[in-house]
Amino acid sequence: MIDAHPYLVGLIGTGVLPSLTPPMHMAEARALGMTYVYRPLDLTALGIDPERIGDVLAWAERLGYDAVNVTHPCKQSVLAHLDRIDPVAAALGAVNTVLFTPTGRVGHNTDTTGFAAAFVDGLPDAETRHVVQLGAGGAGSAVADALLRLGTARLSIVDLDPVRAAALADDLASRHPLAVVDTAAPDRLADVLAGADGLVHCTPVGMAEHPGLPLDAALLRPELWVADIVYRPLDTELLITARERGCRTLSGGRMAVHQAVDAFALITGTRPDPDRMTTHFLDLVAADTTVGPAAAR
Amino acid sequence: MIDAHPYLVGLIGTGVLPSLTPPMHMAEARALGMTYVYRPLDLTALGIDPERIGDVLAWAERLGYDAVNVTHPCKQSVLAHLDRIDPVAAALGAVNTVLFTPTGRVGHNTDTTGFAAAFVDGLPDAETRHVVQLGAGGAGSAVADALLRLGTARLSIVDLDPVRAAALADDLASRHPLAVVDTAAPDRLADVLAGADGLVHCTPVGMAEHPGLPLDAALLRPELWVADIVYRPLDTELLITARERGCRTLSGGRMAVHQAVDAFALITGTRPDPDRMTTHFLDLVAADTTVGPAAAR
Repeated sequence: MIDAHPYLVGLIGTGVLPSLTPPMHMAEARALGMTYVYRPLDLTALGIDPERIGDVLAWAERLGYDAVNVTHPCKQSVLAHLDRIDPVAAALGAVNTVLFTPTGRVGHNTDTTGFAAAFVDGLPDAETRHVVQLGAGGAGSAVADALLRLGTARLSIVDLDPVRAAALADDLASRHPLAVVDTAAPDRLADVLAGADGLVHCTPVGMAEHPGLPLDAALLRPELWVADIVYRPLDTELLITARERGCRTLSGGRMAVHQAVDAFALITGTRPDPDRMTTHFLDLVAADTTVGPAAAR
Repeated sequence: MIDAHPYLVGLIGTGVLPSLTPPMHMAEARALGMTYVYRPLDLTALGIDPERIGDVLAWAERLGYDAVNVTHPCKQSVLAHLDRIDPVAAALGAVNTVLFTPTGRVGHNTDTTGFAAAFVDGLPDAETRHVVQLGAGGAGSAVADALLRLGTARLSIVDLDPVRAAALADDLASRHPLAVVDTAAPDRLADVLAGADGLVHCTPVGMAEHPGLPLDAALLRPELWVADIVYRPLDTELLITARERGCRTLSGGRMAVHQAVDAFALITGTRPDPDRMTTHFLDLVAADTTVGPAAAR
């Protein structure tokens, strides 16, 4: 007992106080008999400019943190302060997990590995010849990379901002030369979805403060699988509608759990139980009264 | 379970890595079912100048610490960075426990309250009409204050440095006007001990790297009680000799436990079990292979 390492982990970002990631890690650690404190380090509440991420990292390391998760708006800027970066995270250009090791700071990205695990777990045998992705932001980038690593042959990026869509498509294509990555304007969504196997939704639409459907419900054919990365609420209007129309669905909650599963494994060297973490997560969501964009990170 | 506060506590000072205080707190917290991480924040190992104690405190507070213990060489310098100071600590001019509360940083001194508790607990009914104290350093100051609060009528301070002895005596006398506080040169120790009830030893002599007896064994009359604040080793040459000569004794371990008991109670609002903490402490001492001055803090 006395020799077991007590873990200290933080979550750095703006508006992270309502995040469910800290209690999720701590509940799993308790179940495993580990001592594990996970603190939200909310740059907004602390009045710390996100540009000082280097100082925050340095002091977290000095003050005995084993690791931190990093979220908006520091997932890119943190890279300059690391000693080594996992190849998957380096390719993505985004890090959400930093380990303070005796040989330096090591960056990983469990958003992308977490989505991949959630996808394999939640939509087994889903076809990925052609996947349509709504949203080309940071979360979309991690999801797209995961889909391409999982063998998606063609990925069509749809975003209101054509420049952002094209930039992501170019970046993905350069790193996944065997895949076709193209873009489509939102008004062409019906065409591009017509022959697709699945739809991944990576915009804020459907969060409590952005209610609604991100596309015309009539486009949801029963043959289509539908994945949402929004997890507050867990059952988005998109997922409810898709299920009503006969589609297989994957909730954002599963990605939220698997990013935490992967981070926990990296931090502790112990593989947590994904089913138990899912149960914890559902309990936390049920008990949670906070709804906000930060909570969905 | 999910709602229980997970505690994060640190120990700030130079050379604190071998301290038994962190594992002592954590073992008690485990026994109480609390999640509690206690990190040694060793300024020497971190290469942080002790003059930067203000920065260390500010970052510990930002990064989610609930409290810190503070030890050499920051027990005095920390006062300038606090919002409120407990009257006992303020009178002493030394703080070893800082609570980060929603209404500011609050300083306490559990070295002095811990010695008082250890004394009452370990030497019940000991007479304190006249006590002789060897050593006028920081630890001696906390011990002297405790003895005077407990009603010692006359305290004689003996130190190799007469200026330091006189300064401590003046300071104590000004704060305890009902007591007599005097000083004696070491060569007058036999005289001053002749009519005393007890002897308190507050110098490093007897630690593994400063072996030996701090006074002539012949001075240890069986009527004298003898308290040592050295706790590594737990059984110092002074205590062994005193027991052989029939004296009642109080070990430094009891003070080490009670300073931790009091700090734990302040930090958590939960009174720990002193007997169980003593058992943890003895286990830790038995398992401990480190011997050094920092370890005795």
